[in-house]
Amino acid sequence: MIQAAVFGFGNIGSGVVAVLEENREQIARVIPGGIAVKYILDIRDFPDSPYADRIVHDVDVILNDPEISVVCETMGGKEPAYTFSRRALERGISVCSSNKELVEAFGPKLLAAAAEHHCSYLFEASVGGGIPLITPMLNCLVQEKITEVMGILNGTTNYMLTKMQHCGADYGKVLQEAQELGYAERDPRADVEGHDTGRKIAILSSLMCGKTVRYDEISCEGITKITPEDFVFAAQHGYTIRLLGMSRLQEDAVSVLTAPFLVPEGHPLYGVTDVFNGVLVHGTMVDDVMFYGRGAGKLPTGSAVAADMILASRNIGSTVPIAWSEELMPVVPAGERISAFFIRGDKAQEEAVLKALDGKLEAVWEAEDSLEGDETFALVTKEYREKEIYNALEEISGIRSMIRMLPKEA
Amino acid sequence: MIQAAVFGFGNIGSGVVAVLEENREQIARVIPGGIAVKYILDIRDFPDSPYADRIVHDVDVILNDPEISVVCETMGGKEPAYTFSRRALERGISVCSSNKELVEAFGPKLLAAAAEHHCSYLFEASVGGGIPLITPMLNCLVQEKITEVMGILNGTTNYMLTKMQHCGADYGKVLQEAQELGYAERDPRADVEGHDTGRKIAILSSLMCGKTVRYDEISCEGITKITPEDFVFAAQHGYTIRLLGMSRLQEDAVSVLTAPFLVPEGHPLYGVTDVFNGVLVHGTMVDDVMFYGRGAGKLPTGSAVAADMILASRNIGSTVPIAWSEELMPVVPAGERISAFFIRGDKAQEEAVLKALDGKLEAVWEAEDSLEGDETFALVTKEYREKEIYNALEEISGIRSMIRMLPKEA
Repeated sequence: MIQAAVFGFGNIGSGVVAVLEENREQIARVIPGGIAVKYILDIRDFPDSPYADRIVHDVDVILNDPEISVVCETMGGKEPAYTFSRRALERGISVCSSNKELVEAFGPKLLAAAAEHHCSYLFEASVGGGIPLITPMLNCLVQEKITEVMGILNGTTNYMLTKMQHCGADYGKVLQEAQELGYAERDPRADVEGHDTGRKIAILSSLMCGKTVRYDEISCEGITKITPEDFVFAAQHGYTIRLLGMSRLQEDAVSVLTAPFLVPEGHPLYGVTDVFNGVLVHGTMVDDVMFYGRGAGKLPTGSAVAADMILASRNIGSTVPIAWSEELMPVVPAGERISAFFIRGDKAQEEAVLKALDGKLEAVWEAEDSLEGDETFALVTKEYREKEIYNALEEISGIRSMIRMLPKEA
Repeated sequence: MIQAAVFGFGNIGSGVVAVLEENREQIARVIPGGIAVKYILDIRDFPDSPYADRIVHDVDVILNDPEISVVCETMGGKEPAYTFSRRALERGISVCSSNKELVEAFGPKLLAAAAEHHCSYLFEASVGGGIPLITPMLNCLVQEKITEVMGILNGTTNYMLTKMQHCGADYGKVLQEAQELGYAERDPRADVEGHDTGRKIAILSSLMCGKTVRYDEISCEGITKITPEDFVFAAQHGYTIRLLGMSRLQEDAVSVLTAPFLVPEGHPLYGVTDVFNGVLVHGTMVDDVMFYGRGAGKLPTGSAVAADMILASRNIGSTVPIAWSEELMPVVPAGERISAFFIRGDKAQEEAVLKALDGKLEAVWEAEDSLEGDETFALVTKEYREKEIYNALEEISGIRSMIRMLPKEA
């Protein structure tokens, strides 16, 4: 039997406890006796919880107990999660985290501490919730040159965009509905402005490169400017709109951003709707592989943390290797990124835009049905360095939307 | 460096060699020196191949070389693949197979031989080609009670059904086109009659249950009777048609079959088109997870075999555990399976069918546009034991299609 502790008894921490308890028999097939939760660290008391007797407020109770070999860190935030994780690793206790903020900021440091002390630092649940993603990417695709990772990594915004697509509702209305359903926070900025996706694509980019891609170097656009009109044009031409984290190797650097994209029908991410997440990994031999599932939620995320705790428990005394060094990976400057754009603007400016983009146009998109409100034009560009597109349009007013696109033959 | 051998230098065997060679640097990150192919066993000579000097015709040359620690078995068929695999395992040489026929027939025997001789028998590439599926299912979902596995497991038929969906072409025409493109064999029965999918769902079912689900106990329906009219009705009501391998726990037995299904828009398998494969795994905690990618092809399948060779190489001297015993898993009798059906038939029989299915109907489907040819009716039933549906319709003639359906809220 493995004795474990939980750092942080919130939504995900209680999910981990539920999975370990409910599926004790499954787990005992590979960890004789299963994984027992001996302590739960939280600043709160939970007098009505069946786990009330395991609550402790002092991390040293856990760190000084030589029986403990694995902890899960489901506290969120950088501190005290970083200090507690680091101290656990320094005592040879493996740490399994769902904390994307901590992993993004200190992943390589914690991995180095784990390697030094013959234990593991694992973080499957930090990206894509319950979806098996990081472990398959690092193990089952270890023979691949991975050149691109992109995905729908935030369930809240994907729910909102799916609603806009199917109901024609505007951004403000779907946000309010998502808040009422508890999918969006009262302060929704981390989701709708793309920061949550940005942290997750930073982690995936770093794992793709084996070097650090820093979140604060990643361009980040959210979904706040997406309109029902954009969806109408997109739908009439076989596209939908999704918020993607996108990372691809471009020569010796990585081109990485978070932004809304037009995604064509037939693309594997097109069918990832509602609160689901999907991550596409491109390897030069295997081509495209996608991992799909619930990107959030107490039990799915708890399940992913439990998977890591089992992996760590099967490797007591050694380190499950994850190649991610502190060395910085060069990031392609925003203007040098290669993108195609959907552009929509005031009808009065159409001629000026067509002239400015002379030679860079792929198509002009007429709307098949008249759209409500005043008249607009829409067009799509070929793939160019972004600065060439932006520079061409610099002097032109009346542009309402510029949204990147995935090519139709993805 | 690991010294390896390839059994069978056909399409997939040469793909394995290409992946190991091309991505030697990637592989050397985890296997110092990489994996070198010392021998290639084939009955043919390949005088023009750069690997001509490694070709051997006698398996004992390989088995008697103490340097060899891993082989891949990409021969196909039961013999001599079984004998060669077994003899390799008995010498402590790990075997990585893409051979679904062998895995389905002798998986537990070969796993037992591997365990006895402290080496591994792995077969990621036997189902879903390049898609990381078996390793994630056995490792990343080991904490889950898996209650259902279903998937699009055959690229040839999925290509054909996608063509029928988009072009309205009939079965004979798309088969001919698939043969011309090399997607379908000259004798297409293994694909179109569902046998290939059947072997693959037998393997996945066995892994879900930890016991043996035998291919010859699995009901197997192919796509040969699917018509353009079925697709028209399906599309008008938000469905498409896909050939699925489907396995779900039903009390203490497993309900398993290969058959075409109506799949609703919004279901993750709906968007799996062309030659791609997708496999949905349902766990009680994580809910639905899907793995998607290329289910065939020299390089994708070679990549999956290479992943197994790396996994075996990282575990020299021990056995990568796979729980699959020879004990037979009880299979739900066909008539006891719970299914909903789409039923289409001669208009003249509509009244008789409605009467026979009284109380079992979900809806009558009118076609929105008139279909070519003579008049038909279409309806869908609720979920019932299949024998209740079949018995009700036993006396009625003029039924043209009966196709199972996935529920809309999957």
